[in-house]
Amino acid sequence: MAALPAARGFSLPLQRPADCGDSRYFDISRLGCRPCGAHQRRSADGSSCVCQPGYRMVSSSGGSSVICEKCPENMSGVTQDGWNCIICPKGLTSEGKCKCLNNEILVERSVNGILLNEALCIRCNGSEQSFSASDASGNRCVRCEQTFINVSKSCDCSSPNVLAGGLCFSASESLPPKGVATVSFGQLGITLTSAWFLKNLQSSASACWLCPDTQTKLNAAYAFGTTYQQNCKVSISKLLLDFANPVFYDLFLEYNGDNGQEKLWAVPVLNLNLQYNEMFVNQGSNMNNWLLTRRFFLVDALSGKENDLGKLPRVIRIASKITISIRLVSHTQRGTIYPPLLTIAYTDMPVQNPETQSVMVSFSVNYEMNQSEAQVQTDITLGVLGGLGVLWSLLKTAGWKRQTGNSIIDLQTIFKFLLFYAGDLANVFFIITVGTGIYWLVFFKAQQFVSVLLPLPSQEEDFVTYIACAFSLKALQFLQLLVSQLTVDVFFIDWERPKGKVVKAVEGEGVTKSATAPVSIWRTYFIANEWNEIQTMRKINPLFQVLAVLFFLEVVGFSNLALMDSSSSLTRSAESYTAPWSRILRFGVSAALWLGIAFLQVIFFSMFYERFVEDKISQFIDLCCMSNISVFLLSHSCFGYYIHGRSVHGHADTNMEEMNMNLKREAENLCSQRGLLPNTDGQTFQISISRKMRLHYDRIHETLTRKRGPARLLDSAANAFEQSTRAYNTMNRFLNSFIDHVHKEMDYIVKDKLLLERILGMEFMEPIEKSIFYNDEGHSFTDVLYYGNEATLLIFDTLFFSVVDLASQSFVLAAILTYLQQEIFRFIRNTLGKKNLASKTLVDERFLI
Amino acid sequence: MAALPAARGFSLPLQRPADCGDSRYFDISRLGCRPCGAHQRRSADGSSCVCQPGYRMVSSSGGSSVICEKCPENMSGVTQDGWNCIICPKGLTSEGKCKCLNNEILVERSVNGILLNEALCIRCNGSEQSFSASDASGNRCVRCEQTFINVSKSCDCSSPNVLAGGLCFSASESLPPKGVATVSFGQLGITLTSAWFLKNLQSSASACWLCPDTQTKLNAAYAFGTTYQQNCKVSISKLLLDFANPVFYDLFLEYNGDNGQEKLWAVPVLNLNLQYNEMFVNQGSNMNNWLLTRRFFLVDALSGKENDLGKLPRVIRIASKITISIRLVSHTQRGTIYPPLLTIAYTDMPVQNPETQSVMVSFSVNYEMNQSEAQVQTDITLGVLGGLGVLWSLLKTAGWKRQTGNSIIDLQTIFKFLLFYAGDLANVFFIITVGTGIYWLVFFKAQQFVSVLLPLPSQEEDFVTYIACAFSLKALQFLQLLVSQLTVDVFFIDWERPKGKVVKAVEGEGVTKSATAPVSIWRTYFIANEWNEIQTMRKINPLFQVLAVLFFLEVVGFSNLALMDSSSSLTRSAESYTAPWSRILRFGVSAALWLGIAFLQVIFFSMFYERFVEDKISQFIDLCCMSNISVFLLSHSCFGYYIHGRSVHGHADTNMEEMNMNLKREAENLCSQRGLLPNTDGQTFQISISRKMRLHYDRIHETLTRKRGPARLLDSAANAFEQSTRAYNTMNRFLNSFIDHVHKEMDYIVKDKLLLERILGMEFMEPIEKSIFYNDEGHSFTDVLYYGNEATLLIFDTLFFSVVDLASQSFVLAAILTYLQQEIFRFIRNTLGKKNLASKTLVDERFLI
Repeated sequence: MAALPAARGFSLPLQRPADCGDSRYFDISRLGCRPCGAHQRRSADGSSCVCQPGYRMVSSSGGSSVICEKCPENMSGVTQDGWNCIICPKGLTSEGKCKCLNNEILVERSVNGILLNEALCIRCNGSEQSFSASDASGNRCVRCEQTFINVSKSCDCSSPNVLAGGLCFSASESLPPKGVATVSFGQLGITLTSAWFLKNLQSSASACWLCPDTQTKLNAAYAFGTTYQQNCKVSISKLLLDFANPVFYDLFLEYNGDNGQEKLWAVPVLNLNLQYNEMFVNQGSNMNNWLLTRRFFLVDALSGKENDLGKLPRVIRIASKITISIRLVSHTQRGTIYPPLLTIAYTDMPVQNPETQSVMVSFSVNYEMNQSEAQVQTDITLGVLGGLGVLWSLLKTAGWKRQTGNSIIDLQTIFKFLLFYAGDLANVFFIITVGTGIYWLVFFKAQQFVSVLLPLPSQEEDFVTYIACAFSLKALQFLQLLVSQLTVDVFFIDWERPKGKVVKAVEGEGVTKSATAPVSIWRTYFIANEWNEIQTMRKINPLFQVLAVLFFLEVVGFSNLALMDSSSSLTRSAESYTAPWSRILRFGVSAALWLGIAFLQVIFFSMFYERFVEDKISQFIDLCCMSNISVFLLSHSCFGYYIHGRSVHGHADTNMEEMNMNLKREAENLCSQRGLLPNTDGQTFQISISRKMRLHYDRIHETLTRKRGPARLLDSAANAFEQSTRAYNTMNRFLNSFIDHVHKEMDYIVKDKLLLERILGMEFMEPIEKSIFYNDEGHSFTDVLYYGNEATLLIFDTLFFSVVDLASQSFVLAAILTYLQQEIFRFIRNTLGKKNLASKTLVDERFLI
Repeated sequence: MAALPAARGFSLPLQRPADCGDSRYFDISRLGCRPCGAHQRRSADGSSCVCQPGYRMVSSSGGSSVICEKCPENMSGVTQDGWNCIICPKGLTSEGKCKCLNNEILVERSVNGILLNEALCIRCNGSEQSFSASDASGNRCVRCEQTFINVSKSCDCSSPNVLAGGLCFSASESLPPKGVATVSFGQLGITLTSAWFLKNLQSSASACWLCPDTQTKLNAAYAFGTTYQQNCKVSISKLLLDFANPVFYDLFLEYNGDNGQEKLWAVPVLNLNLQYNEMFVNQGSNMNNWLLTRRFFLVDALSGKENDLGKLPRVIRIASKITISIRLVSHTQRGTIYPPLLTIAYTDMPVQNPETQSVMVSFSVNYEMNQSEAQVQTDITLGVLGGLGVLWSLLKTAGWKRQTGNSIIDLQTIFKFLLFYAGDLANVFFIITVGTGIYWLVFFKAQQFVSVLLPLPSQEEDFVTYIACAFSLKALQFLQLLVSQLTVDVFFIDWERPKGKVVKAVEGEGVTKSATAPVSIWRTYFIANEWNEIQTMRKINPLFQVLAVLFFLEVVGFSNLALMDSSSSLTRSAESYTAPWSRILRFGVSAALWLGIAFLQVIFFSMFYERFVEDKISQFIDLCCMSNISVFLLSHSCFGYYIHGRSVHGHADTNMEEMNMNLKREAENLCSQRGLLPNTDGQTFQISISRKMRLHYDRIHETLTRKRGPARLLDSAANAFEQSTRAYNTMNRFLNSFIDHVHKEMDYIVKDKLLLERILGMEFMEPIEKSIFYNDEGHSFTDVLYYGNEATLLIFDTLFFSVVDLASQSFVLAAILTYLQQEIFRFIRNTLGKKNLASKTLVDERFLI
């Protein structure tokens, strides 16, 4: 990618020692090759010159500054040190030095250092008392190896004694037969004769230099409680270089015994490749079949050598997966553990091209405890809560039956029961998962002594299943909520009466004409428009919610609490080891943040914002009252809500002067109270209407919506258009008179709900004769809006966020998708809700903006 | 944190070789101490037993299985191999072996290996021809060191020759005086006499093992174009262990010369601690004063040793900061570079407690190029665009003077000019910074051969200053925009006429009473409410914008493009080295994403959403027309906008039946067109009103707002309340008649704007006699809303995001704060805008929900 500009002054050509050839040496101070002098050749290491055979050194100051001189004809040998010529009795080596027979030593100087004219080849005296033999360099007699003396009482190991590996064995000792050096590499199906099979080696290297990493990160493996996982790719050539000889390890755990004495514990090894009776007994889950061993190795590049020990092995065997598993004793308070278990899996690799071949190796430390008790407790909770859920759903179904005014148990009832149960079961799963998540978060992260350990990823499966159940059931409930809100019946009752007859001069005729003054529809438009706007309002700001959660997770660093280590710090330095994520902790942290921030938001909005800034729901009720319009809502056949908006001034369809006057009078408390009953304030009611009333309502309603209002505007059949306008007027009149107690056969009473009725959310009294209006200060008509279903929406959002996060392990993506999800459903709810409103109230969609 | 449960069966007490004492050895197979036999003691390495002095070995099979036998009184010595007793002629060593004088060798066997009864001490023959002397072990005569022979022609180095470091120097060679071994550690102010000062050592270790890290990450330092930075803390004890002897390095760069020959380039070293004439010449920025060297070391733990070489040094010197700087040749197309420069700073550390002391060391690779040309180009662009900005601002000021209907250049005019200029200058800075950011992004990341290199962090300062300027100027413009929008004059003109007299029976008297039928104010409430709602509507969805940018940056991985390496991939593996962030690239990536996504959003909303889903602006204009209400807006004294909303049906204050009928008639094209002029569609106008008209308007307006409408509702002074209601009616009548051309002295004409007028955004004609209504299909009345100022808002948001990101280096935080900023300003704009609307139109705030 880059090239240096030519600049001759400061550069020199690159040469390496191997480039110099036989007649030049590599001058280390010049970084280049230099020729050797006359009668010289390069030394073995290439960095200086030596004399050719038959020449002796006369002087030498390193490098090429060597002077050589030919030896005389009769003294053709050169001494070992190279400085003198000497007569060799038994010939010369290729380097021109003297050589002797194998069992002889070469003597060039007398004992006191005087150089001999002719070298001697002397046989060492191997007889008793002396027991001497030539040493390894062949120039000195030393006492021979003790086994020779033991076996033969001499330095001779002749038949029937056996010489093997430099030692002498007596014929009576039984040496193993030579044929055992056959190694079977089961994974590859290769069997080869290993030139080297068993040899005892001393330990040397540290196990950790299989994967090089920063010391801080490597040290993390030794921090108790930190789940450690390190994978890396190691090239075969590096393994062959670093592990030429297999090193066998015995792993011990050092600990303090009862009396404070330090002790060692031999760590058992589970070798997954171990075969017993041709079965891989250690790969099964049945612990009783396991054969635990103690010794292990990392790389064996020796057994796979065929024929020649100097060549590359045909196959090497590598400990490709090493796991230390640490189990906590149940019910421990101060972190007592069982002895750890080392699990090793070996991989056989045929060696083809060591430079390009590589192998994946992994080292991990797992902490586990017996989770069966937690599992049992979870199951019990699930059972108990699930049972309560059935009861609760049955109650809700009963309430629903009352509200629909129908008492036959049909398929729809069962279906409805299942829907209720889905919602309740979703809550049960949510409670259990949030409880579990926060439990682990608190108990694992906050413990001073280890008393709990996180479930392993494999033990988290149940938990993930629970979340999936919670999410899908909650989604079902949410969709059902959406559908029911999109089909609610709503009608705006206009209390305004015509002001009288309007007298108007007819142009050109000079006479006056009178007609009923029309009541302006604009107040209804206004109310409908505002009603449309509060459809998707919520008790919290859902976007602030998402971003605040993201802020705490990613910016403040709460996400670090989800790491499988024992630290409860919110920051991690860039150099430190990052433990793997725990799915349970991720869910615990994010769910806790969701619920906590939502709680704060609800507090803020209800305690501060709605009191001191604005409260849209109260504003809407006020507006109803100012515009002289009531809202009649039916969420079920015989159940619904009523907002009493009759103006205390009698009329509202007037000019600014009178409106402002009215507002002023009311501010000065000069008017009567707004309530439905005289001298009360109660404007909002839950209504339980009789079947007769509902039938009457339906009869008028049928003509109203027979041809879906707005579409009819473009319809040429003016008949249908007029019919629905007439139906609108009929409905308005009917509801006017109903509220005014005009219809004695369809009257109603107003009463308070019993405490138990409030708690159970159902009505005990059946509205047989009269409809019942229950006082409702809690604005429960918001149940047909997003506003009244905050809990369901919040739990759905929380679960959506968590499910995306569990799938993608990215809080940012989860936040963005949650936002998109909210927007999409809000769009659907708004669009379809507007259509429903337009069709039910005959208000054109153009006024619902 | 954890303790093993007691389990005696499989554990053993921990013992170390050092625990065994003199009379026991460490049995490696038992991992414990075992006693030695009779007459024995521990061997030097502690793993076996040896005979006590005066005892010879009789048999040995390792460990404690040694049998010793006392030597006879007359042969009290033991041979070197320990197997035999021998007579020592010159006494015994403490181990019971024979000892000889310094210049003698010990002979225990004859040449052929026969053990002697009495050992011999023989003096080596050092005369010419033999030149022999005792070898290091003292048991063999070998040729002595060549310097002895060279200097004295013998193996003797007697005075006047000098024996130093094992070599013999002739008296004529001048050895350096011994007193130079004084080392001054300037940083600490310590001068000490070093026992070892200069010695040539051979290189051995690789430089990179100062900071251990994964190989992948370390290799990143050698990827061309990747700015590399590695800091770590190294403990002094590790340095003392690994760098006992200082290693001197010469750094060479290997490259291919012109003719393809490989060459070496000596990399120059800039030693920041080098003093010349007591000045730190290399620390200045004047390159001409630099003294470049070639050799450097990493750790010198030797010079700081005082008195005793075997002890710890008092001070060590560490190369604490190593930087390789690579400069690109200007105008290179194929990535030619200048030779790199190695900059080293040394730190002196007094050694007090090596185990706890540590030192911060850093290694970095910087890539730089001469940025002066880019700087010059930026300056030229800035100058040219800044000049154009002045012209443009002057034009805008002139237009503004026309619109305020005032031609005197006063302080306010200059202030206004400066505000315009701030906005234009902000745009200039924005263009330059975005251009620069995207330039670097494209040219640095996309290049195949290196032709540009990123500015260094120090060179980025100018860029950051520009962004800060752009942001603060844009913020000024944004605030000015906010203030001007919050003070705009608005009036809703109601075209509705009373329907005639209302005839009403007075109760109890049997007579009828007639009064003018009031015109309902609810249409005005509706329009005011809708106008209030579109105040902060925007052309894009600002939240989607923020989250989409965040999505691409953090989830898709565009943030990886901001790393200072040459990779243009969006993903980085967890193991790979993460280069530092470039602030320019961060800005480039995020600004490009902001603008790109905003562009797509604008396309989507204008091409699809507003056509096929909903267009709030058109809906508002439609609503005006349906409610028979016009909107009269004055953004300046004599300039504003007019939305003509006169109903084509003559009236709109009617019941649902008639409203639906009207809607139907219009859908069937049975009505006249909605435009202000007959047979036109033009409903929106820019208006340039005469001063006379403005004065009249102001006169009425004064009484209208003298006591700020809504507050007056609670005011007991009914007088002021009535007065403002009367003023409202007067204003309504006045504007009605003005639009209807009733006032001949305040008439208006309707015309099209000239192309140049549109482009410059100013009016050429002065409305002296008549006001001028300019046709405006572009809905430019949205200039008084957020909607018409999308560019300003978007650039402000972009800059806000970038400034937070530059300060915090966190895209997530930037996104969250940008969202909060939008929400806060939206809240301010909505709240104050609502107050302004209420005060200007007398519509109570309770209807603006």
